[in-house]
Amino acid sequence: MIESVATLGSHCALQVLKGAKDEGFRTVVVTKRGREGVYRRFGFIDEFLVVDEFGEIASEEITEALKGLRSVLVPHGTLISEVGIERAERLGVPIFGNRWLLRWEADRELKGKLMREAGFELPREFSSPEEIDRLCIVKRHGAAGGRGYFLAWDKESYERGVEELKRMGISGKFYIQEYVLGVPAYLHFFYSPLSGEVELLGADIRYESDVDALGRIPAECQRGIKPGYTVVGNIPLVLRESLLEKVFELGEGFVDASKRLVPPGVIGPFCIEGVFTKEARFVAFEFSARIVAGTNLYIDGSPYSSLLFGKPVSMGRRIAMELRKALDEGRIEEVLT
Amino acid sequence: MIESVATLGSHCALQVLKGAKDEGFRTVVVTKRGREGVYRRFGFIDEFLVVDEFGEIASEEITEALKGLRSVLVPHGTLISEVGIERAERLGVPIFGNRWLLRWEADRELKGKLMREAGFELPREFSSPEEIDRLCIVKRHGAAGGRGYFLAWDKESYERGVEELKRMGISGKFYIQEYVLGVPAYLHFFYSPLSGEVELLGADIRYESDVDALGRIPAECQRGIKPGYTVVGNIPLVLRESLLEKVFELGEGFVDASKRLVPPGVIGPFCIEGVFTKEARFVAFEFSARIVAGTNLYIDGSPYSSLLFGKPVSMGRRIAMELRKALDEGRIEEVLT
Amino acid sequence: MIESVATLGSHCALQVLKGAKDEGFRTVVVTKRGREGVYRRFGFIDEFLVVDEFGEIASEEITEALKGLRSVLVPHGTLISEVGIERAERLGVPIFGNRWLLRWEADRELKGKLMREAGFELPREFSSPEEIDRLCIVKRHGAAGGRGYFLAWDKESYERGVEELKRMGISGKFYIQEYVLGVPAYLHFFYSPLSGEVELLGADIRYESDVDALGRIPAECQRGIKPGYTVVGNIPLVLRESLLEKVFELGEGFVDASKRLVPPGVIGPFCIEGVFTKEARFVAFEFSARIVAGTNLYIDGSPYSSLLFGKPVSMGRRIAMELRKALDEGRIEEVLT
Repeated sequence: MIESVATLGSHCALQVLKGAKDEGFRTVVVTKRGREGVYRRFGFIDEFLVVDEFGEIASEEITEALKGLRSVLVPHGTLISEVGIERAERLGVPIFGNRWLLRWEADRELKGKLMREAGFELPREFSSPEEIDRLCIVKRHGAAGGRGYFLAWDKESYERGVEELKRMGISGKFYIQEYVLGVPAYLHFFYSPLSGEVELLGADIRYESDVDALGRIPAECQRGIKPGYTVVGNIPLVLRESLLEKVFELGEGFVDASKRLVPPGVIGPFCIEGVFTKEARFVAFEFSARIVAGTNLYIDGSPYSSLLFGKPVSMGRRIAMELRKALDEGRIEEVLT
Repeated sequence: MIESVATLGSHCALQVLKGAKDEGFRTVVVTKRGREGVYRRFGFIDEFLVVDEFGEIASEEITEALKGLRSVLVPHGTLISEVGIERAERLGVPIFGNRWLLRWEADRELKGKLMREAGFELPREFSSPEEIDRLCIVKRHGAAGGRGYFLAWDKESYERGVEELKRMGISGKFYIQEYVLGVPAYLHFFYSPLSGEVELLGADIRYESDVDALGRIPAECQRGIKPGYTVVGNIPLVLRESLLEKVFELGEGFVDASKRLVPPGVIGPFCIEGVFTKEARFVAFEFSARIVAGTNLYIDGSPYSSLLFGKPVSMGRRIAMELRKALDEGRIEEVLT
Repeated sequence: MIESVATLGSHCALQVLKGAKDEGFRTVVVTKRGREGVYRRFGFIDEFLVVDEFGEIASEEITEALKGLRSVLVPHGTLISEVGIERAERLGVPIFGNRWLLRWEADRELKGKLMREAGFELPREFSSPEEIDRLCIVKRHGAAGGRGYFLAWDKESYERGVEELKRMGISGKFYIQEYVLGVPAYLHFFYSPLSGEVELLGADIRYESDVDALGRIPAECQRGIKPGYTVVGNIPLVLRESLLEKVFELGEGFVDASKRLVPPGVIGPFCIEGVFTKEARFVAFEFSARIVAGTNLYIDGSPYSSLLFGKPVSMGRRIAMELRKALDEGRIEEVLT
């Protein structure tokens, strides 16, 4: 029996726990010592499990505590980045969503496979610097948060980029991807196994440092600035209504592909991330197989959630609504792994 | 007697129909086969009239169906772009708003005339490439969505631009307009013939591909990219409060000019589109004489609608409120044409 | 006894008065003749005191009128820019907040002192053009709204900038500040002396003309444009949740420093303004020791206010809630100066 909702104290914990509280669950945060104070500022968190490293969520002590509280864990980005896939998969507490899908998000090869299976248009990849015939983004394998990225438009600029990274002490294998011209958009979906429906709950633009400050500097003053892509926040976005047909196609494509490749397929929130080109095509770069931080914009509801539910429903609350319904209908095993 | 609100299934149909439902109307979507599925995802649409092309709304079959449902049609951008002015003007169903004004939005000459009559500051136009003495945007007559646009700052760059378009198979007559330096803003107004008041309900920034991605590319990597201006969504904006005086002046100016030039003048939603310069002047580029898609941001209310109504009122709902009031007061003919 | 809330008719007056009304206060606007009409459009303002210049708020006539209405004045940016510090400090009506702190916001030396005392990371300053070794922003002492600013990256570009300003008739003393690469963010705090808590109510990005239009112009077309920094509006932002720890540290640091340097310290709203770098450090440029206009975004509540209060609470309403509580608890002198 599930009585409480737990999550790691980071990323989108506030909305997850607020939403859980609104749906009548007890709430549990697993928080790092020091960052605990942030969560104590809000009135809707019942239990604090304080750890030194998020990895401790996999320890017997925390696992037993969560079991004692009859918790379901809502996974988010911090589970992947700080606990790691291996431990997340083996975690001894029930997880809302499909835990086997997290690996497909974290591994570049699997990620590409799932996106191709979903029928997404993907950026072209180049296998050698000689092939570069347009603006490309070059990423070091395993690079995170934009460190180890550079832009190149031919063999020369590629080699210059590699040299510069070397001087900064960054080396390794690189892969070369077309830099697709278009505006970034992050599409927030929820798939309900109970209803069989894909819902669109919102969209956002990431606010990245310092690439989103670059345009404020006149060209003549830029003088070789290499932008970073560190996410510091999110900006709200609504989509042109005529794009929604395509957007739901992307969402349905993802759900179907995940069912085929990683049964039982995606459960609950996911996000498809890419750019809309000037021809209004969507080219996908990434997906997240769990709630994304961009949904923090809509803690008090989004335009889309208002259309769907007629009341403010955050992604966090949507998760709790699904849990509540699953419990009421005796179908809880359909939303957990 | 009006019993239902109908609109074309695109652009801002979701908020128009949601707002109508909230005010107690039956709701009707005229939707293209295929895109129908998007609208079936939401619970507030009562009737589906499925067509192969939006132009069929002018057919006897659809017209009769709408009459049978005692519908009023809420016009939006798709009516203009896909049905066309001629057919929209002759449509055999009542339209919320002034249908004779749509032509003034669609025709560049009439549009300029109305904006001058409203007292707007407009960008300077140049009659020949020799006159260009500042950054200009050059538009092919009839160009839509940014295709057939280019930037030029003198005769030479003008001629280079024309050449490049030729190579892309685009030719014709061009007009040359000052590229006014300033930040874009779209101002959402509602004029109530029942109260005689101009209301400001919101403001937005369009999210355009790929011009809004350009600033994220370092100057040295841009290498001749020609940006596009395809609208893919909208971003929320509130205005500096000291600008509101000017903003209401713009709104009032538009209402008055439309009354003089196109009686009975504007009814319901309209939008004034332009840039604020660094001197905080507003230079207008366009207007829309009907609801704009930027209002989709505020399906759950905007800061301004919250000040006006103390509850969440989208532009779609504002329309339905005006219809409801007109029916209650026996003044429905004042809001229809 | 306080019975009404008054403010100058500009900046954020609408949300301040709406919030006051929602908490049961009478509302008073001191408005400039001409701009009065804007405020008459909204239904929640009870009293209009019409002046020719905002400075008249310090006149005996207006002061007596405010006293007769038993008003508390909520100060904002217009009080500082149009009435001035001297008169604001001597104003014969009670002010919500610490009036002695306004001087620290307006004076560059005091401002720096308070920010250093708060432990903020500040941009490096250079004492002579010879020292410039990176991109810098050069500001004329006393420059406002971005006029009299330019960018320089070495002695030569500095001298060119000074020359250009001279030709525009702008001269004087300049100071040279590192141009910190990072994305701007404005953090909206509320400090409650009644509870002793620092609350985060929201964050925004300023929309500035024409610097925020610069990135939409291809590098090759910019041709020496010198951007302006005129604020015309604000765009909503949520912060990455893992940054909140740092953000609350900033807020607490400011509260503590203000208590030490300007007793009784900050009361009510304040804002810390700066950039997040790609290393996710926050470098502070400015603070506002009173409500900022960016909070106009959240008249109907922000994601953060929704977490705190479970209902839509604007900064204006938050002020009124504190006033109401102070009155109820007989502690009104703790929130006024």
